[in-house]
Amino acid sequence: MASKPSIPKGTRDFSPTEVAKRQYIMQIIKSNFEKFGFQPIETPSFENSDTLMGKYGEEGDRLIFKILNSGDYLAKANATHLESKDSTKLTASISEKALRYDLTVPFARYVVQHQNDIEFPFKRYQIQPVWRADRPQKGRFREFFQCDADVVGSTSLWQEVELVQLYDSVFTTLGLNGVTIKINNRKILSGIAEVIGASDKLIDFTVALDKLDKIGEDGVKKEMIEKGITADAIEKVQPLFQFTGTISEKIEQLSQLLASSDEGMKGVAELRFICDNVAKLNLATAILDLDVTLARGLNYYTGAIFEVAAPKTVAMGSIGGGGRYDDLTGIFGLKNMSGVGISFGLDRIYLVVEELNLFPETVTVSTKALFINYGDTEALYAMQAIKDLRAAGIKVELYPDSAKMAKQFQHADRRNIPFAVIAGEKEIEANNYALKNLSTGEQVQVSFEELKAKLL
Amino acid sequence: MASKPSIPKGTRDFSPTEVAKRQYIMQIIKSNFEKFGFQPIETPSFENSDTLMGKYGEEGDRLIFKILNSGDYLAKANATHLESKDSTKLTASISEKALRYDLTVPFARYVVQHQNDIEFPFKRYQIQPVWRADRPQKGRFREFFQCDADVVGSTSLWQEVELVQLYDSVFTTLGLNGVTIKINNRKILSGIAEVIGASDKLIDFTVALDKLDKIGEDGVKKEMIEKGITADAIEKVQPLFQFTGTISEKIEQLSQLLASSDEGMKGVAELRFICDNVAKLNLATAILDLDVTLARGLNYYTGAIFEVAAPKTVAMGSIGGGGRYDDLTGIFGLKNMSGVGISFGLDRIYLVVEELNLFPETVTVSTKALFINYGDTEALYAMQAIKDLRAAGIKVELYPDSAKMAKQFQHADRRNIPFAVIAGEKEIEANNYALKNLSTGEQVQVSFEELKAKLL
Repeated sequence: MASKPSIPKGTRDFSPTEVAKRQYIMQIIKSNFEKFGFQPIETPSFENSDTLMGKYGEEGDRLIFKILNSGDYLAKANATHLESKDSTKLTASISEKALRYDLTVPFARYVVQHQNDIEFPFKRYQIQPVWRADRPQKGRFREFFQCDADVVGSTSLWQEVELVQLYDSVFTTLGLNGVTIKINNRKILSGIAEVIGASDKLIDFTVALDKLDKIGEDGVKKEMIEKGITADAIEKVQPLFQFTGTISEKIEQLSQLLASSDEGMKGVAELRFICDNVAKLNLATAILDLDVTLARGLNYYTGAIFEVAAPKTVAMGSIGGGGRYDDLTGIFGLKNMSGVGISFGLDRIYLVVEELNLFPETVTVSTKALFINYGDTEALYAMQAIKDLRAAGIKVELYPDSAKMAKQFQHADRRNIPFAVIAGEKEIEANNYALKNLSTGEQVQVSFEELKAKLL
Repeated sequence: MASKPSIPKGTRDFSPTEVAKRQYIMQIIKSNFEKFGFQPIETPSFENSDTLMGKYGEEGDRLIFKILNSGDYLAKANATHLESKDSTKLTASISEKALRYDLTVPFARYVVQHQNDIEFPFKRYQIQPVWRADRPQKGRFREFFQCDADVVGSTSLWQEVELVQLYDSVFTTLGLNGVTIKINNRKILSGIAEVIGASDKLIDFTVALDKLDKIGEDGVKKEMIEKGITADAIEKVQPLFQFTGTISEKIEQLSQLLASSDEGMKGVAELRFICDNVAKLNLATAILDLDVTLARGLNYYTGAIFEVAAPKTVAMGSIGGGGRYDDLTGIFGLKNMSGVGISFGLDRIYLVVEELNLFPETVTVSTKALFINYGDTEALYAMQAIKDLRAAGIKVELYPDSAKMAKQFQHADRRNIPFAVIAGEKEIEANNYALKNLSTGEQVQVSFEELKAKLL
């Protein structure tokens, strides 16, 4: 093979440093998931196509990676579609499996398939890669990890309270202070639609309203009218154009605005429960804020809607999101299974933590000391110490070859190894070791016990 | 959807208990890899097809999962192959990517692609799933994890010594005492072939010799003769039929047997270095044994060959294997890059650890205490304690609904949660908590500080 090998576009190799940093974030997410009582599950990388197809809309269907059937797949191919060269239609007869597109649909499938073995309410977390045949671009990949926590089998709003706390706990542990957890409620949105008398214009309405900061009240109203929302309707929700104050004050305004809508008032009550209890319990560093324009996955969520924005100093889209859905498992035939969940955007969190310089320096230190190799006799002496140090949990290495000193020290330097241990003839004689601090250059002769103590 | 959903054959869902047990094993492997100075890398789940195809033989090519190109893939399909309905040949024009089949070829690709950024010798580990379109059967899956550690860029035999120690350390940590690490050397096998004067019969020879225990010396010789190995040749390696004693004794016998073969004597010297130094450094619980019939991946390995057998009380194939290869990266155009590596068979190790009852009981305990929910006022009181306990790293949960007592206690029981915390009107009044041990039934009234101390 002449040309240098490469990887498919939209995919990534991760170097030791990158893996260490990613694992650092994932470990914090995982340990917080577990502190909050979530249990891990894992599902296969590929699912039967009929489990995935039709669950993400037409665009989603196109972006799902399909796996070609093994063996003589053309033997079973649909002759008509083959003849007419209809790629889309042919797929079903030459591909039975597809790579998972998210963790939510496989989770729903898991719950239905194992419903008799699951103890409900079921709090599960899942940290696994997903694949999408999206056009790759900056920050958008064809393979990326999702980190999801969901509870199914209870409608209790305490779970929403806990999910807000969970976000706060993870971002606080990461040192990522000042994230904004935006909250809204599908029922508030329905209430607004009812009040403006235009359910079909809801998305247009929220999209326009979301631009308030950018284009001002007049600009927003102009856009709304262009989209066919009447001046009369806009008049009815005028308070939303001066929607400021504390969360409690905002909720108060909503309760007046939506007084005529049963659904809207349910949303107000839910929001009030969640926000009041979060306030009573205090968040460590995150800010909870009500955002009535928040409408992610509108057709999917039925109650609370969450989205997390990075601290204002960092230009970055949402770093997490989630909400309540009342019929997750209905698509697989299990009705009345309410769920609520949140997701962490690993890649974006990584970029934010990197930009704010929040990775601890120790994350990229793996090996603590490199033993210099002076030949087989000395190496055996070194290996005896190495063995006992490793047994004590200390990460140490022998340079495998008795290469030139400079080369061995350079290796330690390039590997970011903080100490070198010199164990030559003199040290063997004295039954000790020379420990060299590679950043200060300081070198001391130490016994094995002292060596161990210094490297622990 | 009427029928209960399912997953593709050969794949698995992992329940919380299974994930916990798998993570327990993986964590031990990972922490030992790191203690020995290996650094993690990760590569994409799918590679360009030309990276993988042709690297595992014809059978391997068939077992690689191919990913169908996105969009109108038939537009670029080879018309001739499409017309002749030649599935195998058509694949190349409708599929450009394939799921990784092992971790070795992607690692070789990684080393070549990133050679300018890698500091050699490069000790990497990789724990990721691989996919094979094998016919599923007991213990053989279409998706499974490989756990590999390799060093590239040095021919030092100290690395073989360390890999033997690494096996010993992992299995000792798992409590899996008495595994046998079988060692052989490709050069010993070449020496034997040279001595019997039949290089092309080497595999037949080792396969027959391996049956010594089962069919006896006469049976083995009969099979060898049937395979075309001459009586004269067999006579020359007669000592291999009484090949017993310590490793040193076996090496001594080999050095006499292979005296006429330069290659064979090189193998003897390598074996001697590795075995002597392993002996001087002592293994904790594993047994190192020389097995001249060991020939896994014969065309691949060029020096040491390793295979690990579970303790004799368990009927299980090999639970690990590896060896030295002198030209791993040559397939991608980077010559003279010697490597040596070992692999752990996660699924089989899991089965052995399960059969020998070696999983610690704590592995499946996640949540430490369930707070009983008596309604919103009490729940808020509970949540205040829960928040502070979680901040201290203790895994606790609130039952989300104020359901009947019996149901909540049953939930704790089914979830294997060891304690329940009762915080009702009486406890709020007294500003304390009732902590109930769910296995003994014992219940005590405790302050928050006492509660924390007992759950830590």
